[in-house]
Amino acid sequence: MSDAPVRGFADAEFEQRTVKAQALMAQQGLAGLLLLTEPEVRYFSGFHTLFWQSPTRPWFLFVPAAGKPIAIIPEIGAALMRQTWLDDIRTWSAPAPQDDGISLLLEILTSLSHRGARVGVMKGHETALRMPLGDYERLMAALPGLEIADATPLVRSLRMVKSTAEIEKLAHICDIGSRSFAAVPSFAPEGQPFEEVFRAFRREALALGADDVPYLVGGADQGGYYDVISPPSRRPLQFGDILMLDTGATFDGYFCDFDRNWAIGQADDLSKRAYDVLWRATEAGMDAARPGATCRDLFTAMQTVIAELDNQGGDVGRLGHGLGMQLTEWPSHAAFDETELQENMVLTLEPSLSYGDGRIMVHEENIVVTDGVPRLLSTRAARELPIL
Amino acid sequence: MSDAPVRGFADAEFEQRTVKAQALMAQQGLAGLLLLTEPEVRYFSGFHTLFWQSPTRPWFLFVPAAGKPIAIIPEIGAALMRQTWLDDIRTWSAPAPQDDGISLLLEILTSLSHRGARVGVMKGHETALRMPLGDYERLMAALPGLEIADATPLVRSLRMVKSTAEIEKLAHICDIGSRSFAAVPSFAPEGQPFEEVFRAFRREALALGADDVPYLVGGADQGGYYDVISPPSRRPLQFGDILMLDTGATFDGYFCDFDRNWAIGQADDLSKRAYDVLWRATEAGMDAARPGATCRDLFTAMQTVIAELDNQGGDVGRLGHGLGMQLTEWPSHAAFDETELQENMVLTLEPSLSYGDGRIMVHEENIVVTDGVPRLLSTRAARELPIL
Repeated sequence: MSDAPVRGFADAEFEQRTVKAQALMAQQGLAGLLLLTEPEVRYFSGFHTLFWQSPTRPWFLFVPAAGKPIAIIPEIGAALMRQTWLDDIRTWSAPAPQDDGISLLLEILTSLSHRGARVGVMKGHETALRMPLGDYERLMAALPGLEIADATPLVRSLRMVKSTAEIEKLAHICDIGSRSFAAVPSFAPEGQPFEEVFRAFRREALALGADDVPYLVGGADQGGYYDVISPPSRRPLQFGDILMLDTGATFDGYFCDFDRNWAIGQADDLSKRAYDVLWRATEAGMDAARPGATCRDLFTAMQTVIAELDNQGGDVGRLGHGLGMQLTEWPSHAAFDETELQENMVLTLEPSLSYGDGRIMVHEENIVVTDGVPRLLSTRAARELPIL
Repeated sequence: MSDAPVRGFADAEFEQRTVKAQALMAQQGLAGLLLLTEPEVRYFSGFHTLFWQSPTRPWFLFVPAAGKPIAIIPEIGAALMRQTWLDDIRTWSAPAPQDDGISLLLEILTSLSHRGARVGVMKGHETALRMPLGDYERLMAALPGLEIADATPLVRSLRMVKSTAEIEKLAHICDIGSRSFAAVPSFAPEGQPFEEVFRAFRREALALGADDVPYLVGGADQGGYYDVISPPSRRPLQFGDILMLDTGATFDGYFCDFDRNWAIGQADDLSKRAYDVLWRATEAGMDAARPGATCRDLFTAMQTVIAELDNQGGDVGRLGHGLGMQLTEWPSHAAFDETELQENMVLTLEPSLSYGDGRIMVHEENIVVTDGVPRLLSTRAARELPIL
């Protein structure tokens, strides 16, 4: 695509991210951050590879109190890591079940342990420990003086607010997503097996410039779908189906995440009403999405409209979330989340409801919070349920 | 694809997997397995969704000493989980950072803790903890009587040997992979940006029946590539390049994982020689792949041939691995891995070497171990480096 943003980021951006992290670390008395997960390693280093899909090898990045992060990684990643802004890259021949990076980590952490330092590890909401738990336990046992603090709030506060270059990538993939959805009428006729609709959607998004379509789910059933996380069946689309596709396509490691709904041949009245409610709930979300408002405010604004048709609310747990290097990121538009919106947060608005005999409908748009009306990254869904 | 295997598995297969696990659990004195990761939850339940890509919500499966597994999952997955063979499905409205499934887990585990039971959790090589570490620590603190044992060897021993139905799916996706590689000459001419080769490969694999192509890496450079885990650049293919593509495409949640090499316009002598060595190393691997041989034997057989050109050996850590629901699975063809091959293990043979000024070359095939000559799932690479 000729209009695609430049891949990667300037070294200055990684430096800024690191300096910001280090300022917060200083405030929190942290001597370092030990990061193990793909988005975090990429955020601070620029190291970008699909190889993380192999669960075999752990990867580590240590962000010290000052200076550049240190990469402690399997040798297979050394050539690629050397292309980043990092200088200090320590490798081992992995896999090595008896010592998968542990000795190298101890070289960095032992002196910190001796002086009783605090080191941040991400152990909070929406995180996982991407190394064997047994290795982590052995590492900690060898570092009795180390105090481990949860680094989730620190990293979250940085990652939630996107840079101009990040927003450019997100805008690009959302545009590709919108154009892919616009093409759906050409490959979703009555009679088309649902599985083939998925396949055609993926091919279309790739043709339009997506690097990949890692996430594609949907539903299709008479008068409404019941499930939004299933893989597709071979069932052909039928007259009277309500069809939904929800995609997470990527460009340069950044996701779009939104969906669209259609009726096949005709739309039943209740589905039309559900669509109208959700379309207006999204509007209410956009009206509420201003710096200083909380995610809870966003939730309430959308839920108030949704309640016209469904006052149960919240079985799916939230009505949208952050978006970036991951399909879903903090924060959550939910009653429990008091996160204050800030300019340049990229969010999904994802109102959903149950109707009829347990059918569900979901709408979703992607926005950037600005100092005024939010910027839509996805092309707004049609005002009325489109009939194919 | 009309010849595609049936999706999913018969309930009897899940029952057999569970009964086998329970027999091993009894031998090891385990009162239950607490499983948190996608392949394990799917292996025992059949629950199959891309929704795991969202890191927000943890998912749990508890395999008791007897009877069907119990699902403890976010409500958003309830409809899909009810389609599996499980009966006992316990849900909560997730995300709920204050209690993301913890109370529901305690309902199951507290009585086991009171009687000092042993419960298996996967904490060994090639595993991760897919729930917040903080939540895990809080859970364990509330279960002081519980003894946690590493369930990795138990689960690995089951998952490493594939069923007939699993092999059918693996054979199908390997066939799609082979046909996709066969089409590469049609979309990898000199001058083609490498990024577009990737995009065309993905579209081809989808057209041939892959559900997705989650993994695609490669290299292309004059007289040989230097890196095998990078995303593609916009650099156009050039006369004299050695091109490699390595793919993990999926069908019904099962991966192929193999690569192919080509020369653009002409092949240099050293690359031709590297190719020849690796082709013969793969042959040596196939000759060694018999029930009763170890992964170390396989490694040695391949390394002996590789040493004709590169006697450093092993910077990438291994020369192949298991294959199934994950792109890479246990075991590893490495000097450290004494795993004995068994019939119906599905493996990659992946000899690689360094040559010239730090260039690397990788070959890879996918096989099933049989009681005789292994069955090739991938169409064997050409005997000589193909020139496009």
